[in-house]
Amino acid sequence: MSSLFSNRILNTKKSFIREILKVTSNKEIISFAGGLPNPISFPIEALEASIHRIIQTQGTSIFQYATTEGYLPLREYIAKRYTKRFGLDIKPEHLLITSGSQQALDLLGKILINEGDEVLLEKPSYLGAIQSLCMSEPTFLEVNLTPSGPDLKALEEIFTHHAPKLFYTVPNFQNPTGLTYSLETRKALGKLLHDKDTVLIEDDPYGELRFMGEDLPYSGFFGAKRSVLLGSFSKIVTPGMRIGWICTQDEEIMDKLITAKQAADLHTNYFSQVAIHDYLIHNDLDAHIQTIKALYLKQRNTMLDSIKEYFPANVEVTEAEGGMFLWVTLPAYMSALELFDLASKANVAFVPGEPFYANDMQPNTLRINYTNSDPATIREGIKRLATAIYTLETKHTL
Amino acid sequence: MSSLFSNRILNTKKSFIREILKVTSNKEIISFAGGLPNPISFPIEALEASIHRIIQTQGTSIFQYATTEGYLPLREYIAKRYTKRFGLDIKPEHLLITSGSQQALDLLGKILINEGDEVLLEKPSYLGAIQSLCMSEPTFLEVNLTPSGPDLKALEEIFTHHAPKLFYTVPNFQNPTGLTYSLETRKALGKLLHDKDTVLIEDDPYGELRFMGEDLPYSGFFGAKRSVLLGSFSKIVTPGMRIGWICTQDEEIMDKLITAKQAADLHTNYFSQVAIHDYLIHNDLDAHIQTIKALYLKQRNTMLDSIKEYFPANVEVTEAEGGMFLWVTLPAYMSALELFDLASKANVAFVPGEPFYANDMQPNTLRINYTNSDPATIREGIKRLATAIYTLETKHTL
Repeated sequence: MSSLFSNRILNTKKSFIREILKVTSNKEIISFAGGLPNPISFPIEALEASIHRIIQTQGTSIFQYATTEGYLPLREYIAKRYTKRFGLDIKPEHLLITSGSQQALDLLGKILINEGDEVLLEKPSYLGAIQSLCMSEPTFLEVNLTPSGPDLKALEEIFTHHAPKLFYTVPNFQNPTGLTYSLETRKALGKLLHDKDTVLIEDDPYGELRFMGEDLPYSGFFGAKRSVLLGSFSKIVTPGMRIGWICTQDEEIMDKLITAKQAADLHTNYFSQVAIHDYLIHNDLDAHIQTIKALYLKQRNTMLDSIKEYFPANVEVTEAEGGMFLWVTLPAYMSALELFDLASKANVAFVPGEPFYANDMQPNTLRINYTNSDPATIREGIKRLATAIYTLETKHTL
Repeated sequence: MSSLFSNRILNTKKSFIREILKVTSNKEIISFAGGLPNPISFPIEALEASIHRIIQTQGTSIFQYATTEGYLPLREYIAKRYTKRFGLDIKPEHLLITSGSQQALDLLGKILINEGDEVLLEKPSYLGAIQSLCMSEPTFLEVNLTPSGPDLKALEEIFTHHAPKLFYTVPNFQNPTGLTYSLETRKALGKLLHDKDTVLIEDDPYGELRFMGEDLPYSGFFGAKRSVLLGSFSKIVTPGMRIGWICTQDEEIMDKLITAKQAADLHTNYFSQVAIHDYLIHNDLDAHIQTIKALYLKQRNTMLDSIKEYFPANVEVTEAEGGMFLWVTLPAYMSALELFDLASKANVAFVPGEPFYANDMQPNTLRINYTNSDPATIREGIKRLATAIYTLETKHTL
């Protein structure tokens, strides 16, 4: 019998995190579940000044329909920042403004994937990407993520037998693991893809939030044939305005993306594009980012220190050099879903690993966020979580 | 050979109008091509006051990530307005806020259509809907639009042989024709669909802009089994903020829409949702709409009067009771594309009918917009267009 609904929606799950967030709205709960920036990092006064200024100087035009590609001065600003950071010749026509980088995934899935086409993901991968790409009904392939990036031998093996339409990566402080690709891995990945049509997507919402070590160039700069970068103002200015972008020098891909963007929502909120651009040219973004990084580094260190103090020694955790998340691996015999129930009772929340796996999941993993709690709360939350882990341990050894 | 790109994007055209708008950016040209609200109708000062107020009273929260469904007080406002206008029990949970109503089409296509599924359109239909639905690769069916709505006999015939997944309609002051469904047609349509799973989509961006006659209830209120309404603040407050909505009491459809919305862009620009809501509760929207209607009615009358004065008698035009557009039918032997070239040379632009037809097009039709030009400009533009029509007439009779 044919259903009222399409196969794509019947095969796409609701976001696990968004469901968890509903549960954790209880104020007693310390939540490490979300991926929210710390609101004290939002430059509210400067944004209000910008909004006042653009209304005075640009009047009605900022309230009107606008071009699909996005506000040209904002695209120029982003192009210049890429050029300055990485010494590449990025131009405004290489940029499309999107309604957050989540929309970039929707558009890329739409233009690249036919039902059943192969798509390669990191294992584990960002759950929002899995959800969004699901809508184009691909077959998912996965490559294990190591502390220096995707397992290169496994990657070569995959490309010997498969030609995935795209490889979706988060090279800096990955969501969910916090892991970062090494320079060597980036070079090898760029080289591997130099003669392949596989579109290399590097989604980089956290790249500017590096606490230690040096900024590394994108893998796409090392010869990958088809390279697409995603960026966003969500973690460095404000997420509520939903302003992200796609950057690619591939004219064919950009042309198709613009058509898909027209069909999706005509254009991104123009008022907010102009407001954020005005904020960027009248304020010191780098100084603002330094403030955010100092805040998050302290919270990250508190979380890592508390974990070392309270967690059993057989629990592993990544030591993210930036970004928003740590990834916890419990002993193999433990289930993060079981732990979630115990932790909820102790009023602390996290995201079990399950939704970050497109195919086979590793049930003893979980993601914790440190950006949206102060250090004292982080210590208390980790303490509660440790108690829950010990309780689970006891259950297993009984 | 398999392409880099998906079939859906290879089969979707760029928006004809957006391409025309680039051509008509020349300031010498009088453009009746766009579908832009008149910028003098934007309540800029009131919106700025609202933005100031929400920053003062709500602080950081309006810059943070938010729920997928949309800002609850805004959904409550829209629910109450529907209830007040039509005496129905619409609740906030029947509403999903979208990034303009264009996104509503994207989401509905995604959740309802598998490749090859049948979709029913008015003939002609809104080109943005054709483009957006194309991305889900349906088979298009069309029903002729008459001055009182879709041809009911043809509609019954279609439903005898087909079971389209959805019927996309613009019941009030349709884009492109300006035509409105009569009360009888609405009743008959609701009745026809009372036992059918075909989702009746009534897209109503212009419904509040009625210059004459009485507001009519939606066809969905007359017993249609699966009814979905689309609305937007683009034509009554501002289009630049891209705030639209989907209203349906069908829980299954709403549930699937929320999943598709998560995957598409997490949620609509939250800052703008809160700003528009604050504007709505602190200002008299009905009075504002009266001002817009008075402005547009004058422009519409000027356009109709000028057409009667200048156009040859064998050219037909619809007399829209509201909205933004008139639809011109040239004698059958004339081509609107040919006219477009002549008109461009005479510095006047419109949209040829072609992109409004999903299947067979009627080449002697065209759409003209009256909302974004003052009366003097409208007279001059219609005069130029008349001259171009006479030139084309002469070419044919030579």
